[in-house]
Amino acid sequence: MNYRMITYILGWILIFEGLFLSLPTITALIYGESALWSYLLSLSGCLLIGSLLVLKKPAKQQLYAREGGVIVGLSWIVLSAFGAVPFVLTGEIPSYINALFETVSGFTTTGASILSDVEALSHASLMWRSFTHWVGGMGVLVFIMAFIPLSGAQNMHLMKAESPGPSVSKLVPRVKTTALLLYSIYFVLTLAEFIMLLFGGMTVFQALNTAFATAGTGGFGFLNSSMGSFSPYIQIVITVFMILFAINFNCYFLILTGKLREAFNIELRTFLIIVGVTITIITINISSMYSSVGEALRHSAFTVASLISTTGFTTTDFNLWPELSRTLLVMIMFVGACAGSTGGGIKVSRIIILLKGMVKEIQTMVHPHQVKKIKMDSHTIDHETVRSVNSYMVAYLMIFSFSLILISFDNHDLITSFTAVAATINNIGPGLELVGPTANFEFFSTPTKIVLIFDMLAGRLELFPILLLFTPSTWKK
Amino acid sequence: MNYRMITYILGWILIFEGLFLSLPTITALIYGESALWSYLLSLSGCLLIGSLLVLKKPAKQQLYAREGGVIVGLSWIVLSAFGAVPFVLTGEIPSYINALFETVSGFTTTGASILSDVEALSHASLMWRSFTHWVGGMGVLVFIMAFIPLSGAQNMHLMKAESPGPSVSKLVPRVKTTALLLYSIYFVLTLAEFIMLLFGGMTVFQALNTAFATAGTGGFGFLNSSMGSFSPYIQIVITVFMILFAINFNCYFLILTGKLREAFNIELRTFLIIVGVTITIITINISSMYSSVGEALRHSAFTVASLISTTGFTTTDFNLWPELSRTLLVMIMFVGACAGSTGGGIKVSRIIILLKGMVKEIQTMVHPHQVKKIKMDSHTIDHETVRSVNSYMVAYLMIFSFSLILISFDNHDLITSFTAVAATINNIGPGLELVGPTANFEFFSTPTKIVLIFDMLAGRLELFPILLLFTPSTWKK
Repeated sequence: MNYRMITYILGWILIFEGLFLSLPTITALIYGESALWSYLLSLSGCLLIGSLLVLKKPAKQQLYAREGGVIVGLSWIVLSAFGAVPFVLTGEIPSYINALFETVSGFTTTGASILSDVEALSHASLMWRSFTHWVGGMGVLVFIMAFIPLSGAQNMHLMKAESPGPSVSKLVPRVKTTALLLYSIYFVLTLAEFIMLLFGGMTVFQALNTAFATAGTGGFGFLNSSMGSFSPYIQIVITVFMILFAINFNCYFLILTGKLREAFNIELRTFLIIVGVTITIITINISSMYSSVGEALRHSAFTVASLISTTGFTTTDFNLWPELSRTLLVMIMFVGACAGSTGGGIKVSRIIILLKGMVKEIQTMVHPHQVKKIKMDSHTIDHETVRSVNSYMVAYLMIFSFSLILISFDNHDLITSFTAVAATINNIGPGLELVGPTANFEFFSTPTKIVLIFDMLAGRLELFPILLLFTPSTWKK
Repeated sequence: MNYRMITYILGWILIFEGLFLSLPTITALIYGESALWSYLLSLSGCLLIGSLLVLKKPAKQQLYAREGGVIVGLSWIVLSAFGAVPFVLTGEIPSYINALFETVSGFTTTGASILSDVEALSHASLMWRSFTHWVGGMGVLVFIMAFIPLSGAQNMHLMKAESPGPSVSKLVPRVKTTALLLYSIYFVLTLAEFIMLLFGGMTVFQALNTAFATAGTGGFGFLNSSMGSFSPYIQIVITVFMILFAINFNCYFLILTGKLREAFNIELRTFLIIVGVTITIITINISSMYSSVGEALRHSAFTVASLISTTGFTTTDFNLWPELSRTLLVMIMFVGACAGSTGGGIKVSRIIILLKGMVKEIQTMVHPHQVKKIKMDSHTIDHETVRSVNSYMVAYLMIFSFSLILISFDNHDLITSFTAVAATINNIGPGLELVGPTANFEFFSTPTKIVLIFDMLAGRLELFPILLLFTPSTWKK
């Protein structure tokens, strides 16, 4: 284990976190808020500790896959641990475990909050919450690695460990250039949403917060009613962008380079079909609850887009919807977004691979001597990917089951416990019943909050980097 | 596809079903019930149609794996379809879909009932219900194949498709002898329970019914209170036998041949640990609800044994227990019994293989160039088994999810829908809320009943034989 290299990179993580903290600091300055000093102190602390750690460049820069995983896991923990400090310093979230929950929820783009009254927060803290979504959405490590003066050969391990989906495809041969392209698309899409929200009458502060939280598919809002009090125009803009940010960013690159057929690959088509069918069924199911079919459609589309993209914004209390709609919503919570997007969940491509693997297994029973390969969009899915998707699924089920058992010691109803785990491991935010859209996670016990923090991190990093940290053999020579 | 061979074996299935029906017929005779004529008619019908189908022995007797799967799937459907007839003829279950649900629930050893008042049934019908559990428990096809005059080489395919667990190990080289040994153990254990129940003061009729339903891990009772009104002695006897029938029968063979260390293999040890830990936690959790810790322990042990063995007998309404207990019960419903037992669920050995596969995956991340094998009890688990366990898990999740979506159109609460699917696909019987221990499945719509019938069959036959029937390529040349 290259410990020197690990602390070196963690140092850079802290320096960048210091830079990120300048945004809420400036916000506090603009609004003349007393939170300024807390953010300034946190910023300075990050820069100071970070600088100490990067003073000397490590001699041996080689990173192996396991170190890639460990660095990714630790980076996110360090980011969250330090990012939680200003919430405590401002006194807005006095308990550190609550502040940590909120920050992990931010960086992992979950959006589950322990706050009952977000409107009481300073502008600086609201901005910091939304900004953690934006930073966490695309993955922070690959971004930082592009700036650190290191030989770049080991970046692929980090990118693999941090980016969502069963496999990473490089758009162009160089990892750095690929990363740059993806971040550009991310930036442009965020900007587009920001501008369209301004047109809808949002203030700059509101539009920036909303754009950050949508882009990262996070879901932290700045009003207690989430997006319920905004105009239909704004709700529709957010709906569209939640879906856009749930699509594999490679598709945008392919569209830009004129490869339309490749862009509309099987994952994207499946995703759009699931979205369309679910919206339709739920609209019919809830139509009697709203004044017009149009209104039902708007709420249905917003909620489906919000939950399948794992954003977690709400316009209405879907906890009160009929059971059919509630069940469908729980199902799409698990499906999640496309691979290579900023969304969470199991990912559409994984589900496709799993289904194809199952069909292949049945066909092998029918024709035992025929060797079949799993194909997606005329590419053969290699054996390694299939195996890792299977392992992911098993790890997912195990983490889910153990989390459910652990948090059931809090003795809340089964739907609350079940959807609390589902909403955190899939990085969504709201669940049903006690963790429904109008509720928050504050009432859980500290052990339960720790379990859910673990689930948010595990979900965002696709399980293995976090599991790696808890495996003894990782730390052996 | 060797259609001639398929109909020939289905013919024998019907002849044996006719013979099985003689037990309720004799019961009706003893109790002087009018149900006699319905059972006599059904018996004759089965014998007649069966005899017509086996008149001519097929020239080509070779069976391939897919035909093995198809025969197993069809046999269970035919068994259930004909087994449901007497319930309709006696007028005790007038609706055929309800009668089919009850019969499938019987043969698959689920024990989920559509009857609100089982005490209104004739003795003949009660006997037939329990007896279907006993017939279905060990699997009927392997039993029948031992008697049919065919060259025996193809039996392994049928045994593989019909017996529960990830792999079939032959105790002795010949399949027929292995089957004979297993059925003997089954018979002796059933007899032992029958005798011990008689000692507890049960009537012969009651003891026979209970022994049949316990042995098959079925769960159909003959009183509306299930086992709640019986003495602690009887409840303890049933608890012990539910656990005994949830253990791999190979273990008994190993114990009888003096191989104690091999008998207490990792699956059995894990199973006993899960049972012990769950009973302990639940006992503490529910102790305030009962007059003494002893009583709480008795109900806790009975319920845990009943649900992990997937029997489904009850002594108390566990739906009213605290959420921690309810959550644990739902979890063990999924774990299920040991492979090679008469119990359902995912099976302990599958979960062990899945967990070991996950650990291996993490270790591969740590040491990418080290080739690791999955070991269980110092045997290496071959690649094929690991892959088929993974496929099983995926198929399980897919069937579960689609079933949940389909039955949620009935618009019952999420826990009812979720545990209804869990209770049928795992062949348990009762779930929670509307399908709790004091409730029944009658209120569901016909489409939902069809989905649950599918789930019971899929669960009992471990998914693939039933999925095979719905795969177009199965039926192509």
